[in-house]
Amino acid sequence: MNGAKALIETLADCGIEYCIANPGTSEMHLVQALDSVPRMKSVLALFEGVCTGAADGIGRMTGKPAATLLHLGPGLANGIANLHNARRANSPMVNIVGNHPHYHVGFDAPLTSDIETLARNYSCWMKSCSTSASLAQDGADAFSASLRGHGGSKGQIATLIMGADAAWGESPGPAKPNPTPARPKVDEQAVGDIAERLGNGEPSALLLEHHATTPAALEAAGRIAAKTGCRLLNGTFPARVDGGPGRVAVERLPYFPEQVLAATAGIEQLVLVGAEPPVSFFAYENVPGRLLPDGCALSRLSAVDEDSIDALERLAETLGAEKEQAKRFERKEIPAPEGPLDTRNIVQAIAATMPEAAIVCTDSGGGNVAYPFCQNTAPHSWLSLTGGAIGQGGPVATGAALACPDRPVLALLGDGGAAYTNQSFWTQAREGLNVTTLIFANRSYNILNVEYARLGITEAGEIAASLFDIGNPNIDWTKMAASFGVPAAKADTAEELTALLKRSHQEPGPFVIEASGEMGR
Amino acid sequence: MNGAKALIETLADCGIEYCIANPGTSEMHLVQALDSVPRMKSVLALFEGVCTGAADGIGRMTGKPAATLLHLGPGLANGIANLHNARRANSPMVNIVGNHPHYHVGFDAPLTSDIETLARNYSCWMKSCSTSASLAQDGADAFSASLRGHGGSKGQIATLIMGADAAWGESPGPAKPNPTPARPKVDEQAVGDIAERLGNGEPSALLLEHHATTPAALEAAGRIAAKTGCRLLNGTFPARVDGGPGRVAVERLPYFPEQVLAATAGIEQLVLVGAEPPVSFFAYENVPGRLLPDGCALSRLSAVDEDSIDALERLAETLGAEKEQAKRFERKEIPAPEGPLDTRNIVQAIAATMPEAAIVCTDSGGGNVAYPFCQNTAPHSWLSLTGGAIGQGGPVATGAALACPDRPVLALLGDGGAAYTNQSFWTQAREGLNVTTLIFANRSYNILNVEYARLGITEAGEIAASLFDIGNPNIDWTKMAASFGVPAAKADTAEELTALLKRSHQEPGPFVIEASGEMGR
Repeated sequence: MNGAKALIETLADCGIEYCIANPGTSEMHLVQALDSVPRMKSVLALFEGVCTGAADGIGRMTGKPAATLLHLGPGLANGIANLHNARRANSPMVNIVGNHPHYHVGFDAPLTSDIETLARNYSCWMKSCSTSASLAQDGADAFSASLRGHGGSKGQIATLIMGADAAWGESPGPAKPNPTPARPKVDEQAVGDIAERLGNGEPSALLLEHHATTPAALEAAGRIAAKTGCRLLNGTFPARVDGGPGRVAVERLPYFPEQVLAATAGIEQLVLVGAEPPVSFFAYENVPGRLLPDGCALSRLSAVDEDSIDALERLAETLGAEKEQAKRFERKEIPAPEGPLDTRNIVQAIAATMPEAAIVCTDSGGGNVAYPFCQNTAPHSWLSLTGGAIGQGGPVATGAALACPDRPVLALLGDGGAAYTNQSFWTQAREGLNVTTLIFANRSYNILNVEYARLGITEAGEIAASLFDIGNPNIDWTKMAASFGVPAAKADTAEELTALLKRSHQEPGPFVIEASGEMGR
Repeated sequence: MNGAKALIETLADCGIEYCIANPGTSEMHLVQALDSVPRMKSVLALFEGVCTGAADGIGRMTGKPAATLLHLGPGLANGIANLHNARRANSPMVNIVGNHPHYHVGFDAPLTSDIETLARNYSCWMKSCSTSASLAQDGADAFSASLRGHGGSKGQIATLIMGADAAWGESPGPAKPNPTPARPKVDEQAVGDIAERLGNGEPSALLLEHHATTPAALEAAGRIAAKTGCRLLNGTFPARVDGGPGRVAVERLPYFPEQVLAATAGIEQLVLVGAEPPVSFFAYENVPGRLLPDGCALSRLSAVDEDSIDALERLAETLGAEKEQAKRFERKEIPAPEGPLDTRNIVQAIAATMPEAAIVCTDSGGGNVAYPFCQNTAPHSWLSLTGGAIGQGGPVATGAALACPDRPVLALLGDGGAAYTNQSFWTQAREGLNVTTLIFANRSYNILNVEYARLGITEAGEIAASLFDIGNPNIDWTKMAASFGVPAAKADTAEELTALLKRSHQEPGPFVIEASGEMGR
C-alpha cells in the first residue's frame, strides 16, 4: 500500500466523509487512493474557493472536518479567502495540499512556491515534511488537530502539505484514529464569579459565540437569562445559530460601530462566553474600535476552545435556574408581500416562504437584513459570513447541502459576492444539491456607497462611482446559472419572487432566482 | 493632501497608467484619490485574480508595472495564483493591499489576518508599516523595486500593505520618482568564455528566457546562431516572445521530460541566457528532474536580472557575427480547415485566421499545440502560462488589451482554466476590449487523463474519472459569456470556427467562441 492510500483510509477511518477536490498532476496517486476508497465521497469543484467554502459548510453542519484536495501553492491560494472565513467560523477542516517531492523542490520548477507561508496564514496545524511511512499518522493527527480548540482566532484548520513522494512511496498501512479530543472545562472559580456578578442586580448581558451558540448552550443561557434578567447577545456574524420559532431568543449585534454602541447602551456587565469583546469591523477616524459602553465591566466565562455548554449548564445550576423557562422566538404569520421588489419586499418573501429546517447561508447585506425577520418563520440553521471575505455563501451552501441532503438550503447572496465563486453552481448541478440561491441583484458593491458616504462625501465622483458599480454591464444571473447547468428565473415583483421561492423549495435540486426589479437603484 | 492622494499622484508621476481594482471599506480614501487622479485609469474587476492577471498582461506588454488595489488578506489571497504566474514571468507590478490601521489590527476584527505572510510568498519587495508621511516615497520605492531585477525566481512584484490611517492621514505631498534602475551588465570574462566555447565546434545551444527573448536580444542571438551553428531555444513557457514571419526563428522546448530530453539530445554545450537549466515541470518516479543530455556542459552568459540584450550583442561582436543573417520564420499559406472540430482543426483555424500584430494569451494545452503552427502566419506576441496556475489566460488577455488597444488580442483558453477566472469577460465587456476568446471545450481536465495514464493505469476508475471530467454538466460558454455581457457563439465545425474567428478579428470589442464539436471525446 502506498502513502496516499494509507492516508485516505486513515481519514475515512477517522470519520471524514467528504473530499472536496480540485486535483492536479502532483496529486495523481491521491486521486488513485480516492478512487479505491468510495466510502469517502469525492466531489469535484471547478475552483478551490468552492472546495474550501464547501468544507466549511460541512464542518459547520456536522461538527466534523471535510477534507479538501488542493494543487500546490496556487491551488491553495485560490482557497484562502474561504479558509479565512472558515478559520473565523472555527470550522474543522483538513486540507491536503499536493507538492513536488522534496528532491524536486530545489529545481524550482514553475509551480514551485513557498506553500508553508501560505498555509501558516490560516492553519492551526501544519506539516510539510511527511514521508510515505509517516503520512497516515500525519493524517490522523491533522484530523485530531481540527477537532481541538487552539484558542484566540487560530481556528481549527489543519493543513497537510504532501510531497508526491510521500504519496507514491511504500507505507506500513493506515494509522489508528487518535482518541477524540475533549474541550477543556472552565474552573469552578470562574463559574462562581460570574454567578455572583449576575446576581448583583446590575444590567448584564451574555455575549455568546461558537460553542456557546449550539442549541444546548443556548438552552442553558436561556434559563440563566430567565433567572437573572440578563440579555443574550450573539456577535454580528455568528458561524451558526439554530434559530426560529421554539428556539431560545437571542439578539444579534448590528454591524456599524455606532449601532453596536446603541444596542449595548446601558449594559454594565458583559460576560464573554466563547466570545471576544465586540469591536468595529473596520476602523474609522474618530470612532472607537472596541465597542463597549463606558464603564461596562467585562468578564469571561469561557474561551473559544473551552466547553461553553458545560460552563453555561453549571452556571445555570449555580444560579438555581434549572427549572426556569427560557424566552423563545414565536411563530408569526408573515403575509406574502406585494408590488415591485425592494429589499424589504425581498426579505418579506424569504420569511413568508421559509421552509421548515432550512439551512440559510448568506454573505450579503440583504441576507443580514433578513435575519431578524426569519426568527418568527420556521426553525432553521443560519450560517453567516464570519470573516468578511465575500464569495462564501455559495460554497458554504454547497457544503451544507452535501452534508444535509434532507434539509432545504437557502443561499442569500449579493451579486458582488456571488460573482466571486459562481463556480459553486456547477457543483450544485453535478451533485443535484437542494440549494435555492437568491441573488440580491442591486448591481452594486452597495456597502461601499454607504462607506464612501461615511467619509463625508455626499456624491461620489465618476471614477469612484465606477468602482462601486457592477451594473455596467449587468450580470444576467439566469444565464450564468444556466451556463453551469442550474435552472434559474428572474423576479421583478414580490409576487413573482414568492412564487419562485415556493416552487424551488418544493422541487429537488438547485435553483437560482435573480431578484432585481428596482431594488438598490 | 492625505497619504492616499500623495501615493496615487506619485505612482502616476512614476508612469503607472492603470490601477486594476477591487476595493473595500479599508480602501475608501484610496478610491477617493483615484477619483481625483484620472490620468491613472481605474479599472474594476469582479475578482482579484483578474486584477493581478490583468496587471501581469500590462507588465508583459509595456515593460512597466500596473497597480492593483486589493482588499486586505482575502482580496490579496484571491490574486495570488496569478501573482505566482506573474512572478514567474518577471512581470513588473505594484500591489496596494488595504489594511486596518495598526492600532485596529490588535482588536482582531473579522477581516484581520497576517497579510505579510501572504505577500512574502511572491513579492520581491514589501512594506507594511507605512505612515501617511512615508506612503508616497514608499510608492516610489515600490515602483523602482518592480523595475529592478532581484535574481533567481524572486520576480518583480512589489507589495505595499497600506494601513487605512496611512491613507487618511496628512502627507507632505507626492514623492519624486526615483532614477530608473538599470540592468547590471555581465562582465567581459563571461562574454569571452562563452565566445570561446561556442567556437570549439561542439554541438551547442543558447537557452533564452525573459530579457533574452526581447526582439533585440533575439536579433543578436540569431546572428550568433548564424555564425556558430548553435541552436536557439526558449523554455517551455516563455513569458513573452514576439514571433511569426520575419522574426528570428527560435525553438520552444516541449512539456514532458522525455520530450525535452529528446529535443535536446546531442547538445554538448548549453548556454543559459537569462534562463535556468531545464527541469521537469512535475516529478515522476524514475524520471530525472534536471533535463540535460548526459555529459552536456552548462554555462551561463547572463542571469535573469542582468542585461541579456547587451550580453548577446557583445557576444555577437566578440564572435565577429555583426553582419550575419539570422534565420527567420517564413510566412506560409495556411489553408482553412474543413470538417468536424478536433484539436488539429482548431489549431489550423487559429493559424489560418491569425491577424497581424495579434497578442496571443494562452493557458491551455490546445494553445501550446497552436504555438509552432502560428510561427508562419503573422507577426505576433505570445504570452504563455508561466507558473502553471490555470485561470491566467483570460486575465492576462484583459490586461494586454487594456495596454495595447490597437492590437487584436486572442485568448486560447481551456475550459477548465477559463472557469477559474470567468469574471474576466465582464471587465472585457465593460471596457470594450478587443479580445477574441477561444475556449477549447473538451469538457475535461484532459492533461490529468494523460498524467494518470503515466502512472501505468490504463483505465481510470469511476471516481478518478469523475475528478477529471468537467462535462457533467457541460458548461455552456456562450451563456456564460452572455451573462457577463460578451457576445458569443458556438462552433462545431472547422468552417464555422474559421468564420467566427474572422468575424471577431474584424469587429471591435470582446467575443467568445466555444469550440466544442467532438474534440477531446
